[in-house]
Amino acid sequence: MTTEIKSLKNLYEESKEKNLQDFITFLKFESVSSEDEHKKDILQCAKWLQKYVQKMGFKTELWETSGHPVLFASFLEAGPDKPTLLIYNHYDVQPVDPLELWESPPFEPAIKDGEIYARGAQDNKGQCFYVLQALNLLLKRDGTLPINIKLCIEGEEETGSAGLSKILKNKRKELLADYLAIVDLGIPKPDQPAITLGVRGIVTMDVELEGSNTDLHSGSHGGIVFNPIHALIEILSKLRDKKGSVTVPGFYDDVQPISQKEKAQLHLDFNPKEYKKTFAAIPSGGEKRYEPLERAWTRPALEINGISGGYAGSGFKTVIPAKAHAKISCRLVPHQDPMRIGKLVASYIKSLAPDGIKVDVKIRPGVGAAVRSSVSSKVVQAFSQAYEDVFNKKTKYIFAGGSIPIISELAEASKSTVVLLGLGLQDDKIHAPNEHFGIDRLEKGALIIARAIEILADM
Amino acid sequence: MTTEIKSLKNLYEESKEKNLQDFITFLKFESVSSEDEHKKDILQCAKWLQKYVQKMGFKTELWETSGHPVLFASFLEAGPDKPTLLIYNHYDVQPVDPLELWESPPFEPAIKDGEIYARGAQDNKGQCFYVLQALNLLLKRDGTLPINIKLCIEGEEETGSAGLSKILKNKRKELLADYLAIVDLGIPKPDQPAITLGVRGIVTMDVELEGSNTDLHSGSHGGIVFNPIHALIEILSKLRDKKGSVTVPGFYDDVQPISQKEKAQLHLDFNPKEYKKTFAAIPSGGEKRYEPLERAWTRPALEINGISGGYAGSGFKTVIPAKAHAKISCRLVPHQDPMRIGKLVASYIKSLAPDGIKVDVKIRPGVGAAVRSSVSSKVVQAFSQAYEDVFNKKTKYIFAGGSIPIISELAEASKSTVVLLGLGLQDDKIHAPNEHFGIDRLEKGALIIARAIEILADM
Repeated sequence: MTTEIKSLKNLYEESKEKNLQDFITFLKFESVSSEDEHKKDILQCAKWLQKYVQKMGFKTELWETSGHPVLFASFLEAGPDKPTLLIYNHYDVQPVDPLELWESPPFEPAIKDGEIYARGAQDNKGQCFYVLQALNLLLKRDGTLPINIKLCIEGEEETGSAGLSKILKNKRKELLADYLAIVDLGIPKPDQPAITLGVRGIVTMDVELEGSNTDLHSGSHGGIVFNPIHALIEILSKLRDKKGSVTVPGFYDDVQPISQKEKAQLHLDFNPKEYKKTFAAIPSGGEKRYEPLERAWTRPALEINGISGGYAGSGFKTVIPAKAHAKISCRLVPHQDPMRIGKLVASYIKSLAPDGIKVDVKIRPGVGAAVRSSVSSKVVQAFSQAYEDVFNKKTKYIFAGGSIPIISELAEASKSTVVLLGLGLQDDKIHAPNEHFGIDRLEKGALIIARAIEILADM
Repeated sequence: MTTEIKSLKNLYEESKEKNLQDFITFLKFESVSSEDEHKKDILQCAKWLQKYVQKMGFKTELWETSGHPVLFASFLEAGPDKPTLLIYNHYDVQPVDPLELWESPPFEPAIKDGEIYARGAQDNKGQCFYVLQALNLLLKRDGTLPINIKLCIEGEEETGSAGLSKILKNKRKELLADYLAIVDLGIPKPDQPAITLGVRGIVTMDVELEGSNTDLHSGSHGGIVFNPIHALIEILSKLRDKKGSVTVPGFYDDVQPISQKEKAQLHLDFNPKEYKKTFAAIPSGGEKRYEPLERAWTRPALEINGISGGYAGSGFKTVIPAKAHAKISCRLVPHQDPMRIGKLVASYIKSLAPDGIKVDVKIRPGVGAAVRSSVSSKVVQAFSQAYEDVFNKKTKYIFAGGSIPIISELAEASKSTVVLLGLGLQDDKIHAPNEHFGIDRLEKGALIIARAIEILADM
């Protein structure tokens, strides 16, 4: 461990307990951005966060949007000779259902074996909170920060960042930065530092099929009307072929294969045994001719994220529903235009409608293009070094299969070079019941961010 | 109108208001048999009904079962020289969801344009209640009944009658009858009297697919694991072919085609225009080479009655669920064994499971064989004449696509000849939001049952 890290670590220990209490308060806000009934919780969470950052000495603004507010904060004492780092996080979280599978309530954080369990514990409140701890560390030690720092913490990442996206063009001055750190990613293993070189783009849509104007008795009407559930499964089953490839015409048109050189740089080691142990699953999905991580990182994909129709409760109901629904997402790679792909999928689905079934496909807001960054950029180098200092191990390069739609737009608006990082682990159960984050990672994250800021100051 | 009908009608008018109030009380019980939280409502409904029938002068017993109780009642003053008619109804109802589509609350009966709106208004509380009114009419007029009457009113028809089915072998003495009237069917049009000659059998099952031990983020895991929703749609889409036929091996093995003579007897006139006007639907489902009503009445079918998996709420959740579910029903014709068909479907579904997906299929209790009755039987003739007297129009013969699993077992246990009848209409929205029944049909039903009893007494 370097002396710089050791001194930061000692300082961290002093306020560890207090910080954990603050983190628990942050986690208790039910800031589910996709559910209207949580609008108030979201706002309370944003205001709490604003006060917290204000107390640290930052100037803050709560930017109103069409949806939930964005917390913008800045600490610019380093002056124009020093670089400016814009750090992006989000304070909104995913819905909690199926609630019955949570071992402790999602908004009553519980600590077990060094892990803290709560919705958002990792994604993204945990990763947001260690950024704040890092800044606190430096401020406590030096009374100031060695580079200019801007924070952009939004409240609609989980629903596609529509609000922030719409105000970006009016906030170019405020957001202007040299570097943009997106702290919402992960590492492949607890002891393996890694920087993420790219995320996939995304477009999502709602599919609705209608067969009649009312639910019908399946005894009297079965065999007469076309059951919209049958129509839905028939249509959806035609979207991928036996090899796992997407059959939508034009879907792969703009995909450029990854070069052997790029592939060689990547940490593509997927361990099927470990995967099976963790998830009780085997890598049998997706395009069979690519390796599992290659599929998730460098290939576009189409997934059905939700399906519903008819009676799904306990017992049985012999019904032919009036309607059936599905939610579909496409993950995209560089050069694929999200809206174009959305329209291709929508029109292909409509073309498959059988007689008697009305089909409606709505492309949802919050589309986003894929992002890639370069190993040789200054900001990637600085964070790479910081990870190495904290973990005492060489940093590897990975990709993320997930999407953060706002990144490409934010990078453009702030005119900055992007670095994608974080300390998420594959089994943190983000977006699922029993999401959790390690208390040790709260500390590592704070040290990495603080150290990277020091390195950037000296570059 | 015959003088017999006229005098019954006059008598009916006298207690019409009082009867309507009693009917509303009956409808208010939330007797949903498939939902555990309504166990108490079911019991209260049964006890209310018992008291009601007791007051009419019947001897009553509440038979305990593994599920909800059966009300058995008898009035045997006609003596051994007169025939015994066993009448079957049920006091349980279907679930009410989607609740938001009801224009008035399902358990707060509302009257509009001569129709009464409530869950169970038709199926089967309305049809049960006019039977009681008929008996009351005769008792009021004559102080007794001209034939022996037994009532069997159960509380689990909507979930498959498991409780009644299990106790039948111990109740053979009580149930012994010459004729069995199942009053849970319908007529093709408001002014067209009809007797039903057959109902299809049924077997239902729950299908569960599991891909992993937890919900997964579709960005990180999409393309790696096999999404169980994809597996589900792929499997289900293989259960029927392009012509609408069921592809399960052996499914049609025991089906005997209906003869031209039988077909000629049936009232097969399906009006696509009217159907479209009523349901905004066209007859594009099922086996294409049969006429719409032929499909629903005389052919077996497989329907998906429910499908669920992933996120179905408002907004979007980029999840690959751990599990996906479907509920399937098969409607059967004579000679098809329900358990055999259930097992064939289950094993075919399991055989289609892709690598990495665990498939479980559970055949649900409450299977039932198809039932057919003969136009020439005494009881069919008597009811046929009663319909004709009340409607002043010739009675037609139809089939029902629905299933009443208990009929074949009840006919066997009571050693009786079956007649299937009722006054349901296709647009009563049974099993759906805004179920309703005509107040005029309450009266017609009472007159038909009373008249048929008189005819049977004279035969």
